[in-house]
Amino acid sequence: MIDFEPPLRLHLDGNALIANWRLLKGQGVADCGAAVKADAYGLGAREVVKRLHNAGCRDFFVAHWGEAAAIADLVPAGSISVLNGINAAEIPLIRRLGAIPVLNTPDQIRLWKAAGGGACNIMLDSGINRLGIGPAQTEAALFDGLEIDILMSHLASADEDSGQNAAQLANFVEIGREIRAKRRSLANSAGIFLGTDYHFELTRPGLSLYGGIARPEMAESIQPVVRLSARILQTRQLETGERVGYNGTFTCPRQMRVGTASLGYADGYLRAFAGNGSAYHHGRKMPVIGRISMDLVTIDLSISPDLKEGDWVDIVYDLAKASCSTGLSQYELLTNLGTRFERQWT
Amino acid sequence: MIDFEPPLRLHLDGNALIANWRLLKGQGVADCGAAVKADAYGLGAREVVKRLHNAGCRDFFVAHWGEAAAIADLVPAGSISVLNGINAAEIPLIRRLGAIPVLNTPDQIRLWKAAGGGACNIMLDSGINRLGIGPAQTEAALFDGLEIDILMSHLASADEDSGQNAAQLANFVEIGREIRAKRRSLANSAGIFLGTDYHFELTRPGLSLYGGIARPEMAESIQPVVRLSARILQTRQLETGERVGYNGTFTCPRQMRVGTASLGYADGYLRAFAGNGSAYHHGRKMPVIGRISMDLVTIDLSISPDLKEGDWVDIVYDLAKASCSTGLSQYELLTNLGTRFERQWT
Repeated sequence: MIDFEPPLRLHLDGNALIANWRLLKGQGVADCGAAVKADAYGLGAREVVKRLHNAGCRDFFVAHWGEAAAIADLVPAGSISVLNGINAAEIPLIRRLGAIPVLNTPDQIRLWKAAGGGACNIMLDSGINRLGIGPAQTEAALFDGLEIDILMSHLASADEDSGQNAAQLANFVEIGREIRAKRRSLANSAGIFLGTDYHFELTRPGLSLYGGIARPEMAESIQPVVRLSARILQTRQLETGERVGYNGTFTCPRQMRVGTASLGYADGYLRAFAGNGSAYHHGRKMPVIGRISMDLVTIDLSISPDLKEGDWVDIVYDLAKASCSTGLSQYELLTNLGTRFERQWT
Repeated sequence: MIDFEPPLRLHLDGNALIANWRLLKGQGVADCGAAVKADAYGLGAREVVKRLHNAGCRDFFVAHWGEAAAIADLVPAGSISVLNGINAAEIPLIRRLGAIPVLNTPDQIRLWKAAGGGACNIMLDSGINRLGIGPAQTEAALFDGLEIDILMSHLASADEDSGQNAAQLANFVEIGREIRAKRRSLANSAGIFLGTDYHFELTRPGLSLYGGIARPEMAESIQPVVRLSARILQTRQLETGERVGYNGTFTCPRQMRVGTASLGYADGYLRAFAGNGSAYHHGRKMPVIGRISMDLVTIDLSISPDLKEGDWVDIVYDLAKASCSTGLSQYELLTNLGTRFERQWT
């Protein structure tokens, strides 16, 4: 297939990724893994896993078995945990792959034992009521004979100062008291900043590895990893009163120089950016105007008379601020980044 | 790579796709092309192009050259138009590929001529002020010697009963009066329903091919093409007062049976579905409860005591209704559908 240069880029900062991992790891003495599910939150799991593994990360968490298979040539299979559990039909493939299942239900535990057992992780539900073995299901016999590496649970409200955090911590300790495991793990990115009580032997951040600010106190220390840029496809001079884009939602309040750049909601730059998005070039900030199209965005270039067709502009993509202005979560801002970007790692 | 069965599916109805194309084509006597940019609005461009080509479609529109290259083995390259224009560096590759550029600016026209010309399409800007040659730029000499197949423009407000539609139609006719081209094209899905004045020789729908309702009068005739289903990973019984999901936003008002299914915002099922999404099984509709997670969604299964772990549920995904309830456009609901689905065509 002929290889064209994509007109939009995701600039990914490998040093910032590693710095974030080290910062999160450095909050305590626990080991620090990495959630790389959903293609490493949209950044590209293979490149993320290579870099974090080189930096010393030894535990990777994905949601699906297919996600484990997609990185299993990069790291020892036993360092990959699959969060979303197992079913009977896929056990032969799981054995072949060698990644470690996270068992979420008594049935999954029985299934795993019946299939011969081996290393596994166990998810306890300490209060999110989503995946995991609940308090009423933990009779000791269930866990007999299991070779448990990580006994884990997941926090629902670690990004808030909520009483639910301490309650989940207490539940996790209580439910897990009689269960033998090599390591325990509770904290996601935000949970790491709740204090070392939440760390146990292993933490497993995701969002903040990739530059997301999971709690306000991280804002100064977590570095952005993702930067977006797009090529200007066309510039034009518009008169006062002319309308721009779908449904003519923007009317020029004065003569304006407008540029159309190669980025749209199909790339994850959703219509929620209309009215609040912006681009910049040589430190000059230029507002996005009108509706976001599927493949295109229009920008007021008036303060940048030098910008011309073929030039590139950076797109403002501060995760925390964009989340406030668009109503999308920082997670969605990452995981919806599409497949048309050229992903450039530095 | 070991091939696991994905726990979430996009069921794609090839007959509905073709029926929609025929319906749109049948609104007049013009030929009917297909917008297949953004991976055919998230459905998968290769499968869409094969099916529409078999049905008789002979004009395919993409945004990027990379998108043209990705389907160029399926149809004659000359039947693919690339909407987002050209730049000097990619002309040798464009020549090799053979797909047809849509020239959007005087500079692009001069570039194409200087590179030897050949078949091209021209985008006129009749009022959306996004891409295309504006009224002030159409001196006759610019078009001399061009071998223009399609002279086109794009409607900004075809989904509304807006005066802008007639104004754009008049502008298109006026600006294009002196430009010689084999065919003219103005109408997208919604534009087709503005009447045959808008059809010229070729229409080029996108959204409604894929089941989107671009104008209310299409609601009865356009067929849904996309259906979502997800595997239930876990079920649990919850007591009154227990909280579900991130930040515990949902509190059980009674004893409930809750299921966690394999679908999340990383798959395009955004958090905007919280509080209004639902699943169904054997005609029973079951509300989505709590926040949508990255890879998971929780569902009130109380009315479906028979549903168990490993079973599949359908996810309600009526594009027009979901657009109203989530605030996302029908286009975004399609183009954000992620890569983890198994795309099953019937």
